[in-house]
Amino acid sequence: MKPSVGFIGLGLMGRPMAANLLKAGYDLTLWNRTVSRADALVAQGAKRAATPRDVAAASEVVFTIVSDPPALESVLWGETGVFAGLRRGSVLVDSSTVSPALARRAASVAALQGAEFLDAPVTGGTWGAEKGELVFMVGGEAETLKRVELVLGAMGKRWFHLGPYGAGQTVKLAMNLILGLQVEAFAEALALVLRGGIAGEQLVEVLQSSMGRSGLIDIKAPMMLKGNYTPSFPLRLMHKDLGLALDLANQLGVPLPATAATRETYSAVKGAGKEDADFSVIASFWRKP
Amino acid sequence: MKPSVGFIGLGLMGRPMAANLLKAGYDLTLWNRTVSRADALVAQGAKRAATPRDVAAASEVVFTIVSDPPALESVLWGETGVFAGLRRGSVLVDSSTVSPALARRAASVAALQGAEFLDAPVTGGTWGAEKGELVFMVGGEAETLKRVELVLGAMGKRWFHLGPYGAGQTVKLAMNLILGLQVEAFAEALALVLRGGIAGEQLVEVLQSSMGRSGLIDIKAPMMLKGNYTPSFPLRLMHKDLGLALDLANQLGVPLPATAATRETYSAVKGAGKEDADFSVIASFWRKP
Amino acid sequence: MKPSVGFIGLGLMGRPMAANLLKAGYDLTLWNRTVSRADALVAQGAKRAATPRDVAAASEVVFTIVSDPPALESVLWGETGVFAGLRRGSVLVDSSTVSPALARRAASVAALQGAEFLDAPVTGGTWGAEKGELVFMVGGEAETLKRVELVLGAMGKRWFHLGPYGAGQTVKLAMNLILGLQVEAFAEALALVLRGGIAGEQLVEVLQSSMGRSGLIDIKAPMMLKGNYTPSFPLRLMHKDLGLALDLANQLGVPLPATAATRETYSAVKGAGKEDADFSVIASFWRKP
Amino acid sequence: MKPSVGFIGLGLMGRPMAANLLKAGYDLTLWNRTVSRADALVAQGAKRAATPRDVAAASEVVFTIVSDPPALESVLWGETGVFAGLRRGSVLVDSSTVSPALARRAASVAALQGAEFLDAPVTGGTWGAEKGELVFMVGGEAETLKRVELVLGAMGKRWFHLGPYGAGQTVKLAMNLILGLQVEAFAEALALVLRGGIAGEQLVEVLQSSMGRSGLIDIKAPMMLKGNYTPSFPLRLMHKDLGLALDLANQLGVPLPATAATRETYSAVKGAGKEDADFSVIASFWRKP
Repeated sequence: MKPSVGFIGLGLMGRPMAANLLKAGYDLTLWNRTVSRADALVAQGAKRAATPRDVAAASEVVFTIVSDPPALESVLWGETGVFAGLRRGSVLVDSSTVSPALARRAASVAALQGAEFLDAPVTGGTWGAEKGELVFMVGGEAETLKRVELVLGAMGKRWFHLGPYGAGQTVKLAMNLILGLQVEAFAEALALVLRGGIAGEQLVEVLQSSMGRSGLIDIKAPMMLKGNYTPSFPLRLMHKDLGLALDLANQLGVPLPATAATRETYSAVKGAGKEDADFSVIASFWRKP
Repeated sequence: MKPSVGFIGLGLMGRPMAANLLKAGYDLTLWNRTVSRADALVAQGAKRAATPRDVAAASEVVFTIVSDPPALESVLWGETGVFAGLRRGSVLVDSSTVSPALARRAASVAALQGAEFLDAPVTGGTWGAEKGELVFMVGGEAETLKRVELVLGAMGKRWFHLGPYGAGQTVKLAMNLILGLQVEAFAEALALVLRGGIAGEQLVEVLQSSMGRSGLIDIKAPMMLKGNYTPSFPLRLMHKDLGLALDLANQLGVPLPATAATRETYSAVKGAGKEDADFSVIASFWRKP
Repeated sequence: MKPSVGFIGLGLMGRPMAANLLKAGYDLTLWNRTVSRADALVAQGAKRAATPRDVAAASEVVFTIVSDPPALESVLWGETGVFAGLRRGSVLVDSSTVSPALARRAASVAALQGAEFLDAPVTGGTWGAEKGELVFMVGGEAETLKRVELVLGAMGKRWFHLGPYGAGQTVKLAMNLILGLQVEAFAEALALVLRGGIAGEQLVEVLQSSMGRSGLIDIKAPMMLKGNYTPSFPLRLMHKDLGLALDLANQLGVPLPATAATRETYSAVKGAGKEDADFSVIASFWRKP
Repeated sequence: MKPSVGFIGLGLMGRPMAANLLKAGYDLTLWNRTVSRADALVAQGAKRAATPRDVAAASEVVFTIVSDPPALESVLWGETGVFAGLRRGSVLVDSSTVSPALARRAASVAALQGAEFLDAPVTGGTWGAEKGELVFMVGGEAETLKRVELVLGAMGKRWFHLGPYGAGQTVKLAMNLILGLQVEAFAEALALVLRGGIAGEQLVEVLQSSMGRSGLIDIKAPMMLKGNYTPSFPLRLMHKDLGLALDLANQLGVPLPATAATRETYSAVKGAGKEDADFSVIASFWRKP
């Protein structure tokens, strides 16, 4: 029998994920800070809860996917938080991108309440969320993952069990570091050829015939050439993720020199008021005044 | 009728390129600093010249592909250099990776002698050189390119006319900057997950299911995991190319913060005596002592 | 009449500061996580409290100086924390180096309890703490500062009122950024001349005849040449402060490229197990393996 | 008896240096690319030569101080260059800031002509040049230095014999790296406090009471606060010197991460058209658009 599912966080990723759960026939209880974002899903049969605590109290499996560590802390802890309602025997799955340390902290609080925890951040973007083709990077107990595989299967095509609590977050941060640097590398290369008097389209055409090609640049480059920065992944989130990767690396004593340099570019462009544009907006760092 | 072709520089790239010219039926005159490297090609019918000057004197189209700017200067200039023998009406094609400024300087000397010049660095690696599938990034006059397209076609599958003298070098440097940073990004991500207690294979597996995937990392990552740094592109050449990209950017006043940070990693690993290993050997920067 | 003073945190800085308060005749109540560190001061007349709460309950002015933001949170909040005992009308002065945001948070909690707050991190090192020659960088209300000037005067020679809550921390982080980079700059210069075959003593001698001279390098350089890294300011604290400066800058959208690069050097050396050595131990980053 | 002295390069440094030689009674022969710059000195008794070669032919000791490596190459080599006239038994002293490799190359050409060479870049700025208080950083043979000490004494107060040919340049580059980073560090700190709402004057006041104080910042900071970038050392020269330091370090395999990051800031500001302003103009990198 299908477990009852709770879902907290109905942003760009959370809404299509929740929609897929509903479509797959799960009994779904929702909460979102901005209440109206749940309306369409409620119209399709989901239940609306008044607080994260109420979501937890109503669910055997609870998903959270919010924008950053403080947002996760605010939905998990406190009087109306998930932990105030989390049921013994339930599973809490966090798909936000946060620090491994926060994942471990949540896991231990869940354990104190007799519940299980997984950190399970996702990759695949809004497109993957809509198609149900997300990839989950999972940290926690293998048995816990087994318990929720069917539910994950409603939202994604693959899940990787990467290690103990926090391992999913570690790999997610490593991946976003790579994505953030790929865009930085292309933006630097683009700035160089443009200032050298060569059209950006030519750089892209050559790249696409070469080993320098990558899926991300295939998608982002044409938009960067046009100055089209409609967000598929907002700068503020990439900036946050690079910060989390650097925090983790600094705790571990692993130098990440290119990531550190790159984060400052993102910071400058965020400081120029572009935090809600797509993260590829860092190309504007090199625009002549 | 096929033009007579000269070829100077029989390194990892030059040898298979020259072999393809021979196979395509070109009358080929060769020179290489280390004489013995020409032996196999001479056995197959190529002529050996005593100096770069003699190569130029014998050829309607002259190719050079050497390791760095000083090497190019030494084969072009001086008493026994190409310019001492370059024929009026001939075409000099440099496929080395050097600065756009050096390309422009060579072009103007060639012009003084009534010859034409193209900068035409290549991408595709030794694999592409062997299969005749190189991509040429060309700077110079479109008419000159027309004159040598058939010859290029014996070595490569595509050529891009990117602008005036030096444009080929500018785009090549931009491309190698991207390749250098892709490997740095993966190496940083790998160091982070390893220190976080996660196997590198897991990072690679997840990456390959994601947007972070790239052709270069698909190839390099498995070798980096094994610590196999057999050179397909030696560290010293990537280090040199990142330096040339930074020199160019600094002349143009274009900041390249991640490239600058990355170059220092390559420098440190070169300083540790690994300059002849593959450039992916930068992963060893993070090995615990 | 002299106010009763509480003092929480008896590390390298806190002990001499508290000793000076005692010497100046203040009625002093102490608390430190490691209890024995208070012994000598108690022998000289200070009172020992069982918890930070008890310190606050006994004092008109409460000083805190602990190692990092989590340590400050743990002494301020919670059942046995300062805020559980803070008296209406008292003044809480935090001389730890933490984020401006945490200073503002502490200020607002203090205000809710009818107490006043100052962030007042110090500079001058253990030497300045012992001599009573610290400099206080103060954020908060000017009137509050007036109320505690006499007390500050027992520990330091100067105080600067820099703005509202958090301003002291902002300036302190800016200052430590400068100190952290001065040592990095000298360490890089030293690595360069050493690898170039020149004795480090010669670099120092020339520097001291030049504009490149600085008070910090005058002190640190001779020790760095000898490989003497006895801590006057431990690496882990400088690493933390550079991280706080970068966090602040990233929130404000101010790129700090050299600070970001520098922090990674500190991180690597911390990761090599040297976090308790003096921060000038970053020179070991360049030691040949 | 006083040797005849030749002097090539009458820029901001060269003119006061030559004037001091004249004042000290040396028989002086001059050359400068821009002829008129020699007028005042000629009016005071110096002889004007038509070419660097003629300077060398007329002199027992020849000084060169020009802006960069290509400028030095152009005055030393070629038909009208110093080497075309350099007398057997003479001493060539180069006080430009160039690479150690170029110094070694000049030394070996001088030796072939029976002349001696010193690399002797200076520190002390135009102020030191005018007062005759320069410091010379000398590479070459100790005996050669002995031979010219009296002459150096007319222009400077100290000279340091640092090692073989090139050692003077190595130490000079190390020193300018420190100066370049000191200004970067202050500029970053300033940007941080300004964006944090604190007046730059307050940062400076606190710094001057602290260990963060340095001679350079004492002088530069007040001008940077006012946006006064009258050049005492132009950005383009500091940018060039940071580039030379990085080139040297990269040849030696010494990573200089903060220098590399800093150079990119200088590059960006140079690219914004400010290369002739004082190098402290990098503070404008952080000005809000």
